[in-house]
Amino acid sequence: MAPSIPTEQWAQVIDKTGGPVQYRKIAVQQPGPDEVLVNIKFSGVCHTDLHAVNGDWPLDTKLPLVGGHEGAGVVVAKGDLAKGVEIGDHVGVKWLNGSCLACDFCQQSDEPLCPHALLSGYTVDGTFQEYCIAKAAHVAHIPKEIPLDEIAPVLCAGITVYKGLKESGAKPGQTVAIVGAGGGLGALAQQYAKAMGLRCIAIDTGDAKRKLCLEQLGSESFIDFATSKNVVKDVQAATADGLGPHAVILVAVNEKPFQQAAEYVRPRGTVICIGLPAGAYLKAPVFESVIKMITIKGSYVGNRKDSAEAIEFYRRGVIKSPFQVVGLSQLQMVYDKMQAGEIAGRYVLDTSK
Amino acid sequence: MAPSIPTEQWAQVIDKTGGPVQYRKIAVQQPGPDEVLVNIKFSGVCHTDLHAVNGDWPLDTKLPLVGGHEGAGVVVAKGDLAKGVEIGDHVGVKWLNGSCLACDFCQQSDEPLCPHALLSGYTVDGTFQEYCIAKAAHVAHIPKEIPLDEIAPVLCAGITVYKGLKESGAKPGQTVAIVGAGGGLGALAQQYAKAMGLRCIAIDTGDAKRKLCLEQLGSESFIDFATSKNVVKDVQAATADGLGPHAVILVAVNEKPFQQAAEYVRPRGTVICIGLPAGAYLKAPVFESVIKMITIKGSYVGNRKDSAEAIEFYRRGVIKSPFQVVGLSQLQMVYDKMQAGEIAGRYVLDTSK
Amino acid sequence: MAPSIPTEQWAQVIDKTGGPVQYRKIAVQQPGPDEVLVNIKFSGVCHTDLHAVNGDWPLDTKLPLVGGHEGAGVVVAKGDLAKGVEIGDHVGVKWLNGSCLACDFCQQSDEPLCPHALLSGYTVDGTFQEYCIAKAAHVAHIPKEIPLDEIAPVLCAGITVYKGLKESGAKPGQTVAIVGAGGGLGALAQQYAKAMGLRCIAIDTGDAKRKLCLEQLGSESFIDFATSKNVVKDVQAATADGLGPHAVILVAVNEKPFQQAAEYVRPRGTVICIGLPAGAYLKAPVFESVIKMITIKGSYVGNRKDSAEAIEFYRRGVIKSPFQVVGLSQLQMVYDKMQAGEIAGRYVLDTSK
Amino acid sequence: MAPSIPTEQWAQVIDKTGGPVQYRKIAVQQPGPDEVLVNIKFSGVCHTDLHAVNGDWPLDTKLPLVGGHEGAGVVVAKGDLAKGVEIGDHVGVKWLNGSCLACDFCQQSDEPLCPHALLSGYTVDGTFQEYCIAKAAHVAHIPKEIPLDEIAPVLCAGITVYKGLKESGAKPGQTVAIVGAGGGLGALAQQYAKAMGLRCIAIDTGDAKRKLCLEQLGSESFIDFATSKNVVKDVQAATADGLGPHAVILVAVNEKPFQQAAEYVRPRGTVICIGLPAGAYLKAPVFESVIKMITIKGSYVGNRKDSAEAIEFYRRGVIKSPFQVVGLSQLQMVYDKMQAGEIAGRYVLDTSK
Repeated sequence: MAPSIPTEQWAQVIDKTGGPVQYRKIAVQQPGPDEVLVNIKFSGVCHTDLHAVNGDWPLDTKLPLVGGHEGAGVVVAKGDLAKGVEIGDHVGVKWLNGSCLACDFCQQSDEPLCPHALLSGYTVDGTFQEYCIAKAAHVAHIPKEIPLDEIAPVLCAGITVYKGLKESGAKPGQTVAIVGAGGGLGALAQQYAKAMGLRCIAIDTGDAKRKLCLEQLGSESFIDFATSKNVVKDVQAATADGLGPHAVILVAVNEKPFQQAAEYVRPRGTVICIGLPAGAYLKAPVFESVIKMITIKGSYVGNRKDSAEAIEFYRRGVIKSPFQVVGLSQLQMVYDKMQAGEIAGRYVLDTSK
Repeated sequence: MAPSIPTEQWAQVIDKTGGPVQYRKIAVQQPGPDEVLVNIKFSGVCHTDLHAVNGDWPLDTKLPLVGGHEGAGVVVAKGDLAKGVEIGDHVGVKWLNGSCLACDFCQQSDEPLCPHALLSGYTVDGTFQEYCIAKAAHVAHIPKEIPLDEIAPVLCAGITVYKGLKESGAKPGQTVAIVGAGGGLGALAQQYAKAMGLRCIAIDTGDAKRKLCLEQLGSESFIDFATSKNVVKDVQAATADGLGPHAVILVAVNEKPFQQAAEYVRPRGTVICIGLPAGAYLKAPVFESVIKMITIKGSYVGNRKDSAEAIEFYRRGVIKSPFQVVGLSQLQMVYDKMQAGEIAGRYVLDTSK
Repeated sequence: MAPSIPTEQWAQVIDKTGGPVQYRKIAVQQPGPDEVLVNIKFSGVCHTDLHAVNGDWPLDTKLPLVGGHEGAGVVVAKGDLAKGVEIGDHVGVKWLNGSCLACDFCQQSDEPLCPHALLSGYTVDGTFQEYCIAKAAHVAHIPKEIPLDEIAPVLCAGITVYKGLKESGAKPGQTVAIVGAGGGLGALAQQYAKAMGLRCIAIDTGDAKRKLCLEQLGSESFIDFATSKNVVKDVQAATADGLGPHAVILVAVNEKPFQQAAEYVRPRGTVICIGLPAGAYLKAPVFESVIKMITIKGSYVGNRKDSAEAIEFYRRGVIKSPFQVVGLSQLQMVYDKMQAGEIAGRYVLDTSK
Repeated sequence: MAPSIPTEQWAQVIDKTGGPVQYRKIAVQQPGPDEVLVNIKFSGVCHTDLHAVNGDWPLDTKLPLVGGHEGAGVVVAKGDLAKGVEIGDHVGVKWLNGSCLACDFCQQSDEPLCPHALLSGYTVDGTFQEYCIAKAAHVAHIPKEIPLDEIAPVLCAGITVYKGLKESGAKPGQTVAIVGAGGGLGALAQQYAKAMGLRCIAIDTGDAKRKLCLEQLGSESFIDFATSKNVVKDVQAATADGLGPHAVILVAVNEKPFQQAAEYVRPRGTVICIGLPAGAYLKAPVFESVIKMITIKGSYVGNRKDSAEAIEFYRRGVIKSPFQVVGLSQLQMVYDKMQAGEIAGRYVLDTSK
């Protein structure tokens, strides 16, 4: 019983770099042999979507463009070669819409590094529409017990921080410092870390964030970078032996936190850089980095296996992600707030409104 | 039949930071219960020795000080607890004279990170004397078929580059770029890399070095950074698929080569920093580092196992290290040349002269 | 203020293989330069102690012998070279009383594989006495907030299962099956697994054990091997995708469970063998093992770092280990029960009684 | 300029399990959207092909069946979705004809473990025909400088031993023992091992094989299992410290060599099982396996990346593989010799004859 698929749908479209987004009707596409058509029910809104509108990253977008890359929905059509996914399945459409699955990087499970990667809401149309095309081998499988609005923000933010934690090499029982702990990525990072058997030091500022991190997100200590007289010493003192955390996750990178991280991380420790601020540089003193044998590593989005694992943690109920739902038609309002730095928690769009 | 041990010996001593070194007679020490006394036959001279004299590193030396940390000799006395080493054994005294063998780092085989490490020729007297004390558990074992003058420079330079190659994670069949390939460390790095099944791109300047690297040291290509119009492109073009080397070993770090390395290294690749230039910074653009998922890592000296492995490669005849021998009494002359940048290859001191 | 140390003490001694153990006074030893003297307060009793009495392992014991290798106490004297441990510190004396810290295995942190290892209560006198000698570098450090009677059984059983879980390579979020889940080792294994972010399938028999595993020890499912019609299918069905657990921990090995493990473990999965039944064989079909690429691995006791980590998990309150205390004088009674298979939980001896 | 493709071709076909193979004309197939059509020029013959004819493995074949899975040829047609491969490219068709590229195993680069894997010459038609269908993402890329007859046997035998060496975890400078060193797989294993910086102990029997292994294949020692009085001691004595090889590669498994391997492998060492003898069992004593912490691991065929790497080693000229060419029409003769155990080196079929 295939659902009936309309020929037209509502979408948010930008026609030129700089915007604006226009809420209008466009045609529904047909999936190719290795693709599925997904009826997107909910889509999260990410800062990357705003970068796509503003065109301030060193990578051009498709135009006209339907943005969005945190879409959760239902498969309504599939091509003949689409494997392991059936009509009616709940799936997620992520930043990585597709990859070649044949290059050196895809062969080693590093699909995010594929030179032929298709990026949802950036180089191909994304999830700010009712019906979205995605490569069948790349959609994330979502167990039906998970509400689709809840899982939407996990599809980018959750997977990304989970990947960063994996890349850090931190082992159960070891300690990670989360820099930017009170933000959306930081909140998810602390919860994933705890579920992975790691212990957290939250680094951020303000009493509200302190309370949130210590009481709800599972961190064992909180360092307020604004009031601390010596962040490096305070972070190290928060570890049992005073030698510093085994890993640092930088979710809100700018140059200062980065350099501090290289100072307070434990010898042999790893600093993971996740955020993508325009024009910023990683920087660390050679002498100390060498004699402490520290590692500094960039971590991008998760591959398909990371994604499945991050979703499974969510399914088990150990991750919570605060969000609020508005209609797809209200995307411009969300961008306006984002531009103004007024967003706390994640916005999720209901594509039916 | 223990050899007869004199009570006095010749040594090169500095009494105050800044030098000079004085060639004079000092007392021979007695080994403690967990120590050995080594009759040093030959000792290499390393740039670090000059740093110890000049006091330009952020770490104080013992004073008065006998420098040197590439000493090869014969065990002539040992304490009651000295295990696995016998009088008459050939051993090497390295930068890491001893460590606590009990702290968190020693427990994970990272003796170089031990907060209680004893550093030969820096925090304890070193190998610029005829009889040197070393912790029994830390001396390197040297098979008797290896000439002691030959192995001396391997005890620091060889082990250090071997360690860096191990830390890079590069696997047999993969490609490493060696930056500073024509120098002493670089020459050793290329030979170790080849013996480990790795393929090398040598980066340095001048036709003499090009010839040396391609014809004697086993590199498959040479990029002259002074004449190349685009070092990044040229290094990447020297790999089969044009995606760049899997690892980069920086043996002569300064900020420019470092930043280039982050650009030409393959996605998922690793940049290893070994050199210790005063005041230099590691620096890489965040955006590219994250989306390429590159790793930047400091590598210090080898642990005991790295040392044993590096010596075993040498024993098998696959590594050559050019050097010239002068008397211990001539150390000041070696420092003068080093200061003037006039050294090619390694100087080895004969302690009997 | 060093405590006063008596010259005589109570101990349990066997004079010949086969026993009996005799509760009598013997001399207190003096620590060597690299040793500590520990006033043992409590000592667990392990099956290995009975093997030492019975002499049924292919390795001779010292005679006369003081058994015991799960001793928790206070340092009362130390040699001049004893590092990182002070008089008054709480420490544990483990199976591995000492190792050379210099051989190839010690150099790679595999002290348990040291050919010169000293084994407490087996090749050197152990913890069934009031004052026990141990190598300073090998005693486990016990934070003072942990009661010494509680930690005693963790010093062997806890560390061993924790090591096995580490060796399995199972990652947070993955599933391990614990075979023999209802016994002492199994109970600890489930709790450590959970603390490490792993998910557990308990395999054992009987409703009491089912209840214990599911309600108190954190397992998500229980397979009763005695009533299951198809253990292999049932274990695989207990995993989300039906492909079987990523790892299997065999704490009560005999040949049948072992062969089943090789069948139900996930392709690419690992079967860890911890138990040491006399004369048993690991056995698995070549064809299935190869095309499933499974790994079968023996895991022995933990090294020093594993020990520190296992104790730290305990300190955090996430591990519970049921035990009952009797006097040191009652050791024979404990052996009698052990011989008769009548022990549930661990016996801990109070050396003062 | 697509080459002209005939509608009929010569092939070797079996119609029922047990054979015989019939050399006859069959239709040429058309590639699907994600497939290529390969004009097979040469195909190696492997023991597995005989198992497919005889039906003595616990896995049914397709019928009627065209066998063969070491085919080297030229792409003559491709589907619309075939990525990274062009008409005219030289490619290899391997045992793994295709996999789903979407399941849990494919996501982690373990395509050989894919439950939906297509097996050339077993579950789909293979390379004993002039034109063979293969999944585009799975064909091996062969640089044009490599003769197609030479590379054919590398496509199964070479990749498989290379994979086994990788799985062993042996590091450059360490020692591997190759059991069955004088056979086809063993000869390749020694050469790959050497190219990977490993040192080899060859285990086999007879002076001809001794000479071959020591003089041409790069082994440093040879143990004749038929004349050795104590294989375990002799293998251990062939390592520098007498502690045994770090890894053992069993290319000709039967139960006796396997059990010996578990005895002579170094503590912490790994025994890799590659061969697939019917009905054989891996077997090792529990006590010794645990206290030596050894690993026993099955290794199947390589994934796509292993394949590319193994071919690249070949391209560099460091691997030689003896073979002789006969016409495709002579396959039955090859099977007869194989059945009779009369084959030395590999047979390669020329599909044009």
